[in-house]
Amino acid sequence: MSDTNLSAVLYKKGDLRLEDRGIPEPGPGEVQISMQKVGICGSDVKYWTAGAIGDFIVKGPILLGHEASGIVTKLGPNVKNLKVGDRVAMDPHITCRSCEFCKAGRYNMCPDLFFLATPPDSGALARYHVHAADFVFKLPDNVSFEEGACVEPLSVGLNACRRVGVTMGNHVLITGAGPIGLCSLLVAKAYGAAAICITDVDAKRLEFAKTLGATHTYLIGKDDKPEELGHKIGEMMGGPPHHTIECSGAQFSVDLAVYATRHAGAVGIIGHGPPRVSFPIVTTVAKELDLKGCFRYVNTWPTLIEMISAGQINVKPIITHNFTIEETLQAFETAKSGAGIKVMIDCAKKMA
Amino acid sequence: MSDTNLSAVLYKKGDLRLEDRGIPEPGPGEVQISMQKVGICGSDVKYWTAGAIGDFIVKGPILLGHEASGIVTKLGPNVKNLKVGDRVAMDPHITCRSCEFCKAGRYNMCPDLFFLATPPDSGALARYHVHAADFVFKLPDNVSFEEGACVEPLSVGLNACRRVGVTMGNHVLITGAGPIGLCSLLVAKAYGAAAICITDVDAKRLEFAKTLGATHTYLIGKDDKPEELGHKIGEMMGGPPHHTIECSGAQFSVDLAVYATRHAGAVGIIGHGPPRVSFPIVTTVAKELDLKGCFRYVNTWPTLIEMISAGQINVKPIITHNFTIEETLQAFETAKSGAGIKVMIDCAKKMA
Amino acid sequence: MSDTNLSAVLYKKGDLRLEDRGIPEPGPGEVQISMQKVGICGSDVKYWTAGAIGDFIVKGPILLGHEASGIVTKLGPNVKNLKVGDRVAMDPHITCRSCEFCKAGRYNMCPDLFFLATPPDSGALARYHVHAADFVFKLPDNVSFEEGACVEPLSVGLNACRRVGVTMGNHVLITGAGPIGLCSLLVAKAYGAAAICITDVDAKRLEFAKTLGATHTYLIGKDDKPEELGHKIGEMMGGPPHHTIECSGAQFSVDLAVYATRHAGAVGIIGHGPPRVSFPIVTTVAKELDLKGCFRYVNTWPTLIEMISAGQINVKPIITHNFTIEETLQAFETAKSGAGIKVMIDCAKKMA
Amino acid sequence: MSDTNLSAVLYKKGDLRLEDRGIPEPGPGEVQISMQKVGICGSDVKYWTAGAIGDFIVKGPILLGHEASGIVTKLGPNVKNLKVGDRVAMDPHITCRSCEFCKAGRYNMCPDLFFLATPPDSGALARYHVHAADFVFKLPDNVSFEEGACVEPLSVGLNACRRVGVTMGNHVLITGAGPIGLCSLLVAKAYGAAAICITDVDAKRLEFAKTLGATHTYLIGKDDKPEELGHKIGEMMGGPPHHTIECSGAQFSVDLAVYATRHAGAVGIIGHGPPRVSFPIVTTVAKELDLKGCFRYVNTWPTLIEMISAGQINVKPIITHNFTIEETLQAFETAKSGAGIKVMIDCAKKMA
Repeated sequence: MSDTNLSAVLYKKGDLRLEDRGIPEPGPGEVQISMQKVGICGSDVKYWTAGAIGDFIVKGPILLGHEASGIVTKLGPNVKNLKVGDRVAMDPHITCRSCEFCKAGRYNMCPDLFFLATPPDSGALARYHVHAADFVFKLPDNVSFEEGACVEPLSVGLNACRRVGVTMGNHVLITGAGPIGLCSLLVAKAYGAAAICITDVDAKRLEFAKTLGATHTYLIGKDDKPEELGHKIGEMMGGPPHHTIECSGAQFSVDLAVYATRHAGAVGIIGHGPPRVSFPIVTTVAKELDLKGCFRYVNTWPTLIEMISAGQINVKPIITHNFTIEETLQAFETAKSGAGIKVMIDCAKKMA
Repeated sequence: MSDTNLSAVLYKKGDLRLEDRGIPEPGPGEVQISMQKVGICGSDVKYWTAGAIGDFIVKGPILLGHEASGIVTKLGPNVKNLKVGDRVAMDPHITCRSCEFCKAGRYNMCPDLFFLATPPDSGALARYHVHAADFVFKLPDNVSFEEGACVEPLSVGLNACRRVGVTMGNHVLITGAGPIGLCSLLVAKAYGAAAICITDVDAKRLEFAKTLGATHTYLIGKDDKPEELGHKIGEMMGGPPHHTIECSGAQFSVDLAVYATRHAGAVGIIGHGPPRVSFPIVTTVAKELDLKGCFRYVNTWPTLIEMISAGQINVKPIITHNFTIEETLQAFETAKSGAGIKVMIDCAKKMA
Repeated sequence: MSDTNLSAVLYKKGDLRLEDRGIPEPGPGEVQISMQKVGICGSDVKYWTAGAIGDFIVKGPILLGHEASGIVTKLGPNVKNLKVGDRVAMDPHITCRSCEFCKAGRYNMCPDLFFLATPPDSGALARYHVHAADFVFKLPDNVSFEEGACVEPLSVGLNACRRVGVTMGNHVLITGAGPIGLCSLLVAKAYGAAAICITDVDAKRLEFAKTLGATHTYLIGKDDKPEELGHKIGEMMGGPPHHTIECSGAQFSVDLAVYATRHAGAVGIIGHGPPRVSFPIVTTVAKELDLKGCFRYVNTWPTLIEMISAGQINVKPIITHNFTIEETLQAFETAKSGAGIKVMIDCAKKMA
Repeated sequence: MSDTNLSAVLYKKGDLRLEDRGIPEPGPGEVQISMQKVGICGSDVKYWTAGAIGDFIVKGPILLGHEASGIVTKLGPNVKNLKVGDRVAMDPHITCRSCEFCKAGRYNMCPDLFFLATPPDSGALARYHVHAADFVFKLPDNVSFEEGACVEPLSVGLNACRRVGVTMGNHVLITGAGPIGLCSLLVAKAYGAAAICITDVDAKRLEFAKTLGATHTYLIGKDDKPEELGHKIGEMMGGPPHHTIECSGAQFSVDLAVYATRHAGAVGIIGHGPPRVSFPIVTTVAKELDLKGCFRYVNTWPTLIEMISAGQINVKPIITHNFTIEETLQAFETAKSGAGIKVMIDCAKKMA
């Protein structure tokens, strides 16, 4: 393995550099990981191109990357759940483990958490990374590092499915067919949804969504009205969606979700573009809808790893591009271009 | 008892008449009720003054009144749960009992329901009224007809408390100290809330709320900012509210609810003024809040009647005015003026 | 169609006769159905061989059969959800629709219900049957009558899965591989269970269960001890079952369920042989297990019909034998012999 | 304060000694506490008289005592939630904080936990004790140390109420009026239960329970039959209990719970005497009851401290006896005699 720690460091907006950061040593309860695959998330691209997402502002150099897998290379003191050589995937959280939210099973609400590649917290796009062992999960032999890295975006979908209560036999509407929409689709299908409709403004994405299991798709045009379309989607699906997962951040989709969702149903809101959106409150009240904010995820790695291993979730098709860590800039350019779905970086491989 | 059926009939906006409508006979599964007390709801006043609420438009003459209690005077065929002479209160719903929502315990979502005093459905403000026996509930001797009529507004509060999950030890914020806010307060207290803060723009209402058990009040001024105030309320209460019940329909209160409510908490939305409101979506997502529309109520009468009878909910103080049915117009004028909290009409008593 | 109503009538223990009962006419809210397929349930066999199950005693002649599908041939007054010619399956319940349980979405707890083929209530094994329209559900064209009849045993499995909370990624243990165990297996799989272990004392049943999707099986031998076996099953499955569904009614299986199930998990109890069983209470308390009685089902037909139609539940393989109604006795003898899994009777077909 | 650490050490069955154990120093994340009040639990008495409870066997000297309050006297490194001088109560758990159960909000199921005064883990009945700071909770000024120590038995009641889902308006049956039954009563009342019936074989305890808020009591006699009595209790309460909390460990009470509890209700099982009990399985299934093991508690201190401070739970009356730590043996003799309800030991006070 490498004896340097080549890392992708974002100094400021537009200034992403590859440099050796030195190999970190694991402290108590930590493990050192030889990183294998790291996926590029939309937030990584945004920090690179804009230097900030909302209140999270890049003020000093941080590593990017939080969709990550690797091989355990060293154990710090008191690590019992892993051993050197374990193939692993990482939950980007490191939480306080003692606040009211951590103790109540909602560690994503911890007010005192570290989260990979969210300023000021650094990421894992490097040859080596150290992480808290209780947020590192062993991969079975039949789960690849690429699949391991995809547990992160799948987790966003799982969290939303759980929050809204997707269950066997449900009709589910997913607004937005980007990586998060597609991961939500894969997870909703694994939950036994009977029908899944996905919407987007891009016909190619919808075609792709069909190959992943969408039973219905709808290409949103500029003349579509949310209320009419909500009704139409219910008819297409043979009954309105029990739940909607909003992955687009668009005002149109929030309205569509409220109009489309069945009475007594729930809308999981993952996407957010503008800081404020409006919604038809009378309809929301009259239908007793639940609009539920969905933030990251909690307790998702073990379940998803097992579902991938069991062949019940097949995330491979969403991985469309591969680069080495030395090609990081090229990888980010590709991700920015929107050319594929998921761009993956190999952190271990060296260029010939 | 009366041998005519004096009724308060709304012909159109502003045209509320008292007239004899003939005494109705109960069909199968129905009971005839000698009405005793009927409370005036804000919606009654609105139909009278505006002729419509949203899509519900008064197109022909209907009776008003849906907060109702009385004495059973006749049984239709196949009624087993009641007998002549029973003192009763009525759930204004009459539902289809066979759709997916009725069968799943959410009869307030029934697409084929009758609801007292909601056009085109007629109300119960009359000497006699016929209702489906399964939506009529016996009052114990120690529960007065006035209290029986108040089960309806209490039900709105109970439904919201249930929907958001108020439970023992919670901090609860209630925005709006009108009749629904006060009923929500009484119910939240009965649920064992440890602290209840109520807000309004009217200081007198807040004073009154304190006498009903509010542990904190806040008089909203025109310089208040929702985000700052949200923080301040959390500090006042010794920790942010687990749940907020929005009873005002004001944009300010929706924002306040989002900013004030604790991470992983829920906001029950009862109030609605304008057909659309906006909300801070990033905060909603980051805090994983649930915004839950709350519409009427389901399965609330037996519980509330028992809680009143047990002395654990004392709704009497909210009844501030009493009129006879012959004084209906005066009662409506009083309700419209905002002079009191709950205006009650005695349907049985005749003026001297 | 037939102009007589050949019916399978149980007069008393061992006395099952075929006789013309006259074609019944539908009343208000009812439909007349030309029965197509009726499956034989263990309870049908038991009423025939023993004349009683617990407190349900055959005191006068009743029809057997409650796993049923057919074609609507006549509508009574006020039926809106069906039309003549509809292919349908029937939920055997006819409930009061107005008690606290019906109103709360738990109609299987209704104290005043009719249930097909449960003395003194008569069944549907006949050429014609009349049923309440709100408990009759339309079958899509791609769902056969045989599959329609199997919605009933699948419903038992669905109810248990729902009661214990089976969800995506779970490990599920099912004790007993008879028709109910197999239907529970099919449903648990549709819920996205990651691993399903099924136990029985019959190796052939376990072989069959594997073809339906069991990931693990265990043949219980006479030397097995519940506590040891519980531990072994957890290891086999790569982690103890989150939930167990007990379908055998055996004391051994109740103990196994308690020892096998993961801490904080749930055991759904469907089976019951002796009227009392014992359980290891200290283990139940220390693991905070939920032991949940599962009785029949509630609100299951629409979901299951859709899942069969969508190809996500394939119940066809469990249908192992077919007879005409004229061969009813032979069909019952076959069911009693335990030769197959599900014995189906064709109520429409006439013998050549 | 004391400069020695007088401690109540159980060497083996019957051998409880007072000795100086040296004052412990807090490590990282720990606090040193000058113990103030420690209540004696039935388990403390049992370890003393029997040397074991089930598989928990006293093999070497351990301190007793786990119902505990005190004053923080020293902070270890990294403690942020407390400061020296804070008046506190302690949750006896110290958990791993990283297993699936800790991460999911069920830390009482942690397989790797320390629990005060449960062999081989030592207790807190001493002048000084060191505890993990995240399981130590600040008491407001208006909550006494005695009340602080009672948060532990109240927590057992709260956990059971939560597990079975006690909520506003419920009827609750509690079997057994010992300290745990009485604490369950106080908590069920705080949850807004409309009616609470408590049973025991001791009339004096029932009298006492009435003063704490029981609306009904029943003195169980040797001729009572569980099924009949179950029916009678439902009638007494004006409707069967929605939930039962079993605090006696008696076979009779398990049967009574099953027969008394309303259809679709839940039985929380706290008590356990013999390692196995039996239950009427057919009734359990037909009523779809949930029998739920209840073990210790999770996340209860903050809520209970606030409810005591708010005056909504008044636990003071259950404290019937007070001793100094130097009188520990006398205190244990009193507790063993069953003379009072809760015997409290003052760890700070020195005898005159």
